[in-house]
Amino acid sequence: MPSSLQLDEPTVSTTRDALLLNYEQIRHDSELICAPLETEDYCIQTMSDVSPAKWHLAHTSWFFETFLLLPFVKTYRCFNPVFDYLFNSYYLTHGQPFSRPARGLLSRPTVAEIHQYRAAVDEAMVELITTAAEMQWQELEPLIVLGLNHEQQHQELMLTDLKHVFAQNPLHPRYRELSSPPLHQVSDISWVTVDKGIYNIGHSGAGFGYDNEYPRHQGLLQPFALASRPVTNAEYLEFINDGGYSNPALWLSDGWTCVQTHAWHAPLYWEQRDSEWWHMTLGGMRPLDLNAPVCHVSQYEAAAYASWAGTRLPTEFEWEVSVSGLPVDGNLRNTDYLQPAAASGNSLLQQCYGDVWEWTASAYAPYPGYRIPAGSVGEYNGKFMSSQAVLRGGSCVTASDHIRSSYRNFFYPKDRWQFSGIRLARDL
Amino acid sequence: MPSSLQLDEPTVSTTRDALLLNYEQIRHDSELICAPLETEDYCIQTMSDVSPAKWHLAHTSWFFETFLLLPFVKTYRCFNPVFDYLFNSYYLTHGQPFSRPARGLLSRPTVAEIHQYRAAVDEAMVELITTAAEMQWQELEPLIVLGLNHEQQHQELMLTDLKHVFAQNPLHPRYRELSSPPLHQVSDISWVTVDKGIYNIGHSGAGFGYDNEYPRHQGLLQPFALASRPVTNAEYLEFINDGGYSNPALWLSDGWTCVQTHAWHAPLYWEQRDSEWWHMTLGGMRPLDLNAPVCHVSQYEAAAYASWAGTRLPTEFEWEVSVSGLPVDGNLRNTDYLQPAAASGNSLLQQCYGDVWEWTASAYAPYPGYRIPAGSVGEYNGKFMSSQAVLRGGSCVTASDHIRSSYRNFFYPKDRWQFSGIRLARDL
Amino acid sequence: MPSSLQLDEPTVSTTRDALLLNYEQIRHDSELICAPLETEDYCIQTMSDVSPAKWHLAHTSWFFETFLLLPFVKTYRCFNPVFDYLFNSYYLTHGQPFSRPARGLLSRPTVAEIHQYRAAVDEAMVELITTAAEMQWQELEPLIVLGLNHEQQHQELMLTDLKHVFAQNPLHPRYRELSSPPLHQVSDISWVTVDKGIYNIGHSGAGFGYDNEYPRHQGLLQPFALASRPVTNAEYLEFINDGGYSNPALWLSDGWTCVQTHAWHAPLYWEQRDSEWWHMTLGGMRPLDLNAPVCHVSQYEAAAYASWAGTRLPTEFEWEVSVSGLPVDGNLRNTDYLQPAAASGNSLLQQCYGDVWEWTASAYAPYPGYRIPAGSVGEYNGKFMSSQAVLRGGSCVTASDHIRSSYRNFFYPKDRWQFSGIRLARDL
Amino acid sequence: MPSSLQLDEPTVSTTRDALLLNYEQIRHDSELICAPLETEDYCIQTMSDVSPAKWHLAHTSWFFETFLLLPFVKTYRCFNPVFDYLFNSYYLTHGQPFSRPARGLLSRPTVAEIHQYRAAVDEAMVELITTAAEMQWQELEPLIVLGLNHEQQHQELMLTDLKHVFAQNPLHPRYRELSSPPLHQVSDISWVTVDKGIYNIGHSGAGFGYDNEYPRHQGLLQPFALASRPVTNAEYLEFINDGGYSNPALWLSDGWTCVQTHAWHAPLYWEQRDSEWWHMTLGGMRPLDLNAPVCHVSQYEAAAYASWAGTRLPTEFEWEVSVSGLPVDGNLRNTDYLQPAAASGNSLLQQCYGDVWEWTASAYAPYPGYRIPAGSVGEYNGKFMSSQAVLRGGSCVTASDHIRSSYRNFFYPKDRWQFSGIRLARDL
Repeated sequence: MPSSLQLDEPTVSTTRDALLLNYEQIRHDSELICAPLETEDYCIQTMSDVSPAKWHLAHTSWFFETFLLLPFVKTYRCFNPVFDYLFNSYYLTHGQPFSRPARGLLSRPTVAEIHQYRAAVDEAMVELITTAAEMQWQELEPLIVLGLNHEQQHQELMLTDLKHVFAQNPLHPRYRELSSPPLHQVSDISWVTVDKGIYNIGHSGAGFGYDNEYPRHQGLLQPFALASRPVTNAEYLEFINDGGYSNPALWLSDGWTCVQTHAWHAPLYWEQRDSEWWHMTLGGMRPLDLNAPVCHVSQYEAAAYASWAGTRLPTEFEWEVSVSGLPVDGNLRNTDYLQPAAASGNSLLQQCYGDVWEWTASAYAPYPGYRIPAGSVGEYNGKFMSSQAVLRGGSCVTASDHIRSSYRNFFYPKDRWQFSGIRLARDL
Repeated sequence: MPSSLQLDEPTVSTTRDALLLNYEQIRHDSELICAPLETEDYCIQTMSDVSPAKWHLAHTSWFFETFLLLPFVKTYRCFNPVFDYLFNSYYLTHGQPFSRPARGLLSRPTVAEIHQYRAAVDEAMVELITTAAEMQWQELEPLIVLGLNHEQQHQELMLTDLKHVFAQNPLHPRYRELSSPPLHQVSDISWVTVDKGIYNIGHSGAGFGYDNEYPRHQGLLQPFALASRPVTNAEYLEFINDGGYSNPALWLSDGWTCVQTHAWHAPLYWEQRDSEWWHMTLGGMRPLDLNAPVCHVSQYEAAAYASWAGTRLPTEFEWEVSVSGLPVDGNLRNTDYLQPAAASGNSLLQQCYGDVWEWTASAYAPYPGYRIPAGSVGEYNGKFMSSQAVLRGGSCVTASDHIRSSYRNFFYPKDRWQFSGIRLARDL
Repeated sequence: MPSSLQLDEPTVSTTRDALLLNYEQIRHDSELICAPLETEDYCIQTMSDVSPAKWHLAHTSWFFETFLLLPFVKTYRCFNPVFDYLFNSYYLTHGQPFSRPARGLLSRPTVAEIHQYRAAVDEAMVELITTAAEMQWQELEPLIVLGLNHEQQHQELMLTDLKHVFAQNPLHPRYRELSSPPLHQVSDISWVTVDKGIYNIGHSGAGFGYDNEYPRHQGLLQPFALASRPVTNAEYLEFINDGGYSNPALWLSDGWTCVQTHAWHAPLYWEQRDSEWWHMTLGGMRPLDLNAPVCHVSQYEAAAYASWAGTRLPTEFEWEVSVSGLPVDGNLRNTDYLQPAAASGNSLLQQCYGDVWEWTASAYAPYPGYRIPAGSVGEYNGKFMSSQAVLRGGSCVTASDHIRSSYRNFFYPKDRWQFSGIRLARDL
Repeated sequence: MPSSLQLDEPTVSTTRDALLLNYEQIRHDSELICAPLETEDYCIQTMSDVSPAKWHLAHTSWFFETFLLLPFVKTYRCFNPVFDYLFNSYYLTHGQPFSRPARGLLSRPTVAEIHQYRAAVDEAMVELITTAAEMQWQELEPLIVLGLNHEQQHQELMLTDLKHVFAQNPLHPRYRELSSPPLHQVSDISWVTVDKGIYNIGHSGAGFGYDNEYPRHQGLLQPFALASRPVTNAEYLEFINDGGYSNPALWLSDGWTCVQTHAWHAPLYWEQRDSEWWHMTLGGMRPLDLNAPVCHVSQYEAAAYASWAGTRLPTEFEWEVSVSGLPVDGNLRNTDYLQPAAASGNSLLQQCYGDVWEWTASAYAPYPGYRIPAGSVGEYNGKFMSSQAVLRGGSCVTASDHIRSSYRNFFYPKDRWQFSGIRLARDL
């Protein structure tokens, strides 16, 4: 069991040699993430949204098998036809997938068999990357890059889902030994202002971007101010102590229904022991760091907090315009804390990348001119553009080369098991 | 039982005399709408979204009692303190309301008692309007105007809900005898183009607007084209016959879940008899008019149809910019068909007002700079700005003086019991 | 509106003239029971088990139409073919009935139309009874007697269901003005002992009995003692005050699940106002009479009480053997209290008939040799012999000629909306 | 992985040496049963009724720790206090147990840790059995015997639950390699008659019996006939092919609801491949042996079959009286088929023990004079005496020394995952 993930986390590249290297490293990262697990830990599904770790390991391999090996490698023999049913996530144009909430009911294939599946896929993929004719390569390369980004998303989900699994267990097991982030006293929020204007939104430049980040287009923003850093646990506790969870006037109607139905009274994973608050982390139960960003709140809680504070959440466009010039740096997965940390440094905007995904006020919707890509990979993003909200900036479990200013993550307003937090905005 | 509603539907006015007249006419309209009902029809709640007609009659009176009479008329005696609990809809800052799904479990107060309640409220309101001191009038007048617009919304809901009630009954009773709209052969859709530009969005001018229509602000639109008229039943049947309801590639993910969970295979209220399609109307079961706009579809169905047609739904801003110059005219409640009718005339954009509420692609969200009003009436709109979508243009059951280009209606993407239809748009 | 039901409640007879008289009186009784109702009260269904009063009125007529008029009267024209679907309760061999939980969603047919339906059925039934050929009469007569007993059962259900409807309403309307029963101080429970022996069980003699009371057969009983009277409210309060509802050791496992799921803490319809207990009655909210039998408890509560008291519930055989010699007399519907009353008199066994149905320990099962009758009426009793428990003795809303020592009523152990109470037994 | 269970299955004995041997063998059997499993197989819970194998292993140890070691061994240190919460099944007087449907959400403790737990308990138990003072032994011995019988029950449940787990998996893994039982053509059912009379019911003699088998008492039976053997798959197929699952007249009302709600159309685990029926076994998917007893039917299906065949289910008393003289022998766990087999031999009554648990018509109820034992072990049986039905005779997964004629098993009428079948009876 490694004492640290030690992931090199290479940037996904597009030259063939570099891509081969990327392929090997990213695929290896998934296995490194699972290295601290007991066999039993791979199998558990604690709610519909959570998938067992072994399912993630198999599904990411299914992606390469289904979209690369079977269509492009004549001699490739399907590893096991039933896996096509078991490890398809939601590609309905490809076939009816196995029921999502039943993923935790499968003891077989075993973890060992899934590792064999991964090895077989990897062997064939390496062969394909190495030997594909140049003409075919034009077609393969974007699919491989998509597959690697897809795998990095699932690496984040593995950590998120494992946290949920360990948190439901009264034994509070830790995922592995992890250092606690350093403590700092953070400064009060200051406000960074942006003028009214027409701004460019969406992905630009040569690197990879998902279809939902395109097309780059112009948007008109009213003047606004963005908070210098996310809301801290200390600040969120003020909201709690001021009766935030029992004052319906602060809440969206659907949010208030959640509060009452699920008896929400604090962020997910918080637990009061005597008068002190603790929270579950991947390193086990720990006392709450009051200076760290509040995490594991729903968009409803984020909006209620903002309302209580006399502010609002930023739109995703305000966020992107404010952040787009900053270096991609922060408490991401490679710091190996795997929990949000108190802000340090004295830049104007802090913690834009890493720590917590920041809920925006924006519904997840297509950009003007967006077209769903052809084929099954067209189901990757577009069909989820309903009733979900956009989050920006990555978290402490996001791979450091898997985030950028135009990156749009999306979850339902009620979701709390992601590493999601709050950055405030206000009108000028 | 009247042979026609014969509603004069006066414009809501703001001079005191005119407002008194408005008050009397609009309050009377609610009763006219109920005149054809049997006592039993007033009591039924066929799903959570539906309220019994007698509840609507009482709730609209509760609004005046609670927000006008009790705070402003010292001598007013509350009609029945329990009514404050029973007929509060969702004003949580005012108190915990009676459970919404249980509204149909109340045989008492009787319809006769609710009419007495209305009469008592009306008597006190007329006195208040007539005698309020001028200084107080500045405060009262916007609340009264709000109350009257609120009542008009509930008039539409009464007709919508009664249709649902009658449609669930195997006897298929009709609400009342209603003429069928004239038949026309409609022309093919043509496309009205709008240039890229910065446009003003939101309510302007002196008339009443809800808080959600404010503040008027600028928005940047990409060039687009809007369909000349809504999608017809004939066009929608092509989608059905082409397997639209069994092709997941056309659907948003949440929409496909609805299709499967509820076994959707046609719009709500459609019924196939031998090879012909019929649909339930407020005038009873009738054969489908193939030239009339398709109605009672969810936003999911609207989006799937648009996807099948290689188009998309317009944003609410595209809709408003396109329509804002047109006269407010169409098959609204005062034509007394109470069902959508085939387009007639040869204007470029047809049926923008009336016939069917048009689903837009826009999530219901606050305009830049929007602020929730103070007090309980602040719960009117803002707290619903989550997970719902905007519809525009009014329908065949909307009062003709209760619609305008900036009017934003909103329902969940899955909702089908409203008179909701489809207008297409496309990128240029 | 009558000041009292004034029901003569004739014994169901089997001579043709007497049966005609019975028919007219029993059918009239159903309408008398409804006479105090407002039209709105006829329509409400507050849970699946409850049916609207107008449904009861129609269903009892459907019984005569379906099993007598349509098969036996050539010239009879079905009143409305849709009624056959709407008012079939559960006779699956006759056809698929309308969904039971949706009975409250039907505003039509109106109450007036149902009265017309009753009148049409009555006219044809009177004609049939009067003119049927003697040979046919042999076949008709048992079906008519069954129909009348069926109608009496529904009369009791109407009162039971109306109580539930009025009790859910925050206005607590009363069904009609009703006298309160006289107050008495009851004596302590004494115990009536029965020797071990072989006893006859089941219906004997000439009068009507349901199929489930047959065949009369021998059973072997161990010696036991039966309590002289049902448990009172005062006694049940001791159980409550001793923590009965929070001590799992007293409860059957399924019962404890109910306690926790539904937060049971007192009998249905009890309400604590300051320190005093009130309960809903058909005469409105009233203070609890501590000497009256506890009512509206489930079999789980009855068993938990018995366990707390160191006793048990009697089997239905113990009950029948103990009671079979006693006159059928008590606080039944004809006393017109419509609520349980304190025991009076000084007989050894008190309140065996009337006041409350007494839960027994016996699962509802067929007697040895029982055969389900042929035809649709075979669905009357036999198919319910699973997972239900037997109650004996009738209640304050049972017609006085509709009860006997062999009468077996049955409900699920969790049911509380019946007038159900507790009589204890113990081993000797 | 052993090629056979090779369980010696000793009779539970009561001399101290013999009991020590029993203890060691029975505890070892539980581990032998798990030997063929992969680690992943230990963790899965496919429905609420199913527990993961590792939970069974831990819970049976918890029983000894809680009811023997902690109260009687001063020096014993609780292995892990959280286990007391995790592995309590339903002993509410002992404390609030961990949520039953969440047993499959626990990856920890691992299988290895549970084996350590078992070893620690076993070490202390062996010490206790060996060294307890004679006076204390009188108290210990019945609790140890109960714990061993309890463990044997869970051994059966492990096999039953594992079958459910493997059957839900589209890969249809087999538990282990198992021989198929020999094929035989079975004879037609003949009928064994029993005279009317007073018979003794309940446990007699010196061996162990559960509290629910006591007290032995007299019961009066009417004359009846019992079928010579259980209903076969061939016979059950006739019922299916005759439309048994679509004819409501054959079903109990609650059973018909199950048929429709769950779309039952064959026994659990049956699957039609082309025209042939296969079924899942612990040895994997196999063609149906038409001569073997039908298995995995609910009591509702058993009763519907009996009704279709013009017969009925026996009462548990009829079963016991008929079988009580026969030797305890049959296709029990020690034959190591772990599936029902065709009857062989020519005794009058065949397959009374083993093959399938036989549903009786009897509700699970206390015998006359039954008293719940004091203390937490009083929760063992009595509190389940509601809404369940009795099964008799053991099955192909019952330990051969864990069955007797007075043994009362009980499940809900809807349950199908047990090895449950049908033996018919009829009146004479």
